[in-house]
Amino acid sequence: MAQPGLQAVETTCPFCEGLSDPVGFWGPHWVWTFPHSVAVLGSWQYYTGYCVLVSREHATELSQLGPRRTPFLEEMAMLAEAIGECFRPVKLNYELLGNQVPHLHWHLIPRYDHDPDRRRPVWFTLEMAERDSGQRLRFQTGHLPVDECVRRLRNWLQGHGAPVAIA
Amino acid sequence: MAQPGLQAVETTCPFCEGLSDPVGFWGPHWVWTFPHSVAVLGSWQYYTGYCVLVSREHATELSQLGPRRTPFLEEMAMLAEAIGECFRPVKLNYELLGNQVPHLHWHLIPRYDHDPDRRRPVWFTLEMAERDSGQRLRFQTGHLPVDECVRRLRNWLQGHGAPVAIA
Repeated sequence: MAQPGLQAVETTCPFCEGLSDPVGFWGPHWVWTFPHSVAVLGSWQYYTGYCVLVSREHATELSQLGPRRTPFLEEMAMLAEAIGECFRPVKLNYELLGNQVPHLHWHLIPRYDHDPDRRRPVWFTLEMAERDSGQRLRFQTGHLPVDECVRRLRNWLQGHGAPVAIA
Repeated sequence: MAQPGLQAVETTCPFCEGLSDPVGFWGPHWVWTFPHSVAVLGSWQYYTGYCVLVSREHATELSQLGPRRTPFLEEMAMLAEAIGECFRPVKLNYELLGNQVPHLHWHLIPRYDHDPDRRRPVWFTLEMAERDSGQRLRFQTGHLPVDECVRRLRNWLQGHGAPVAIA
């Protein structure tokens, strides 16, 4: 991946910055460091258990991962299962967009029946919430505290033998 | 998966209906029948090459697929690579939502620089387009005809040994 343009992206990539020290960077939101990705609790905990899974390699498309693509997808599916088991949503949304930050990262978003906008993608709600400080706080707050969400996810992952990055 | 509720969903599921005869149901939009999924060109060809990849098994979450989860994800990644190679978008969006039709299906949406809304998820544009017949036609029409998109994707998949469902 030693393309001239790529290095420039990496040095200003907010995810690459966090990946050098996931626990320090994401603090209490850090959940797990898999061999190929880092799981963190997302900002919008109205969707209780919402996680972002960041590729440890700077790449913009799955095809750039080569043989690391399969385990990266397996880690995504395992974290999705953990969210489903820990929080029992009615549906999960799995989204890898990268329109704003083109470093592979999954949004794993549990959907609940109490959400009046349950049938639409979350982005309508979140764009509105970002513009309004009162709404922002409301949608950043879940019905469980952050440390409880993280504890549940970590327990599930540990109990199901989730792989851990070596150093 | 023999839950009482599930059978009822299946019998009214629009994807299950199509899957009994993909070529007949999707007509010129049908691209490929993989062992675990069917690829069809999506309706919104403003995003030239946009495909929907439908699980051949009725399931609502990846975790329900058991050992078929990995090949289903591999088929998604292969189709995404085909779209990237055939149409050279600046970015791909990979989305498995199921908020309206809870049968596993990926939206694989190529994003292009000519799109003034390139930094946002496509759903803002598409919700607007669905409400307005003039806009609907505009966003359903790509800069390539449907048969040319399908031809390119099929050629790429064939040339890269994409697996095919047996009967």
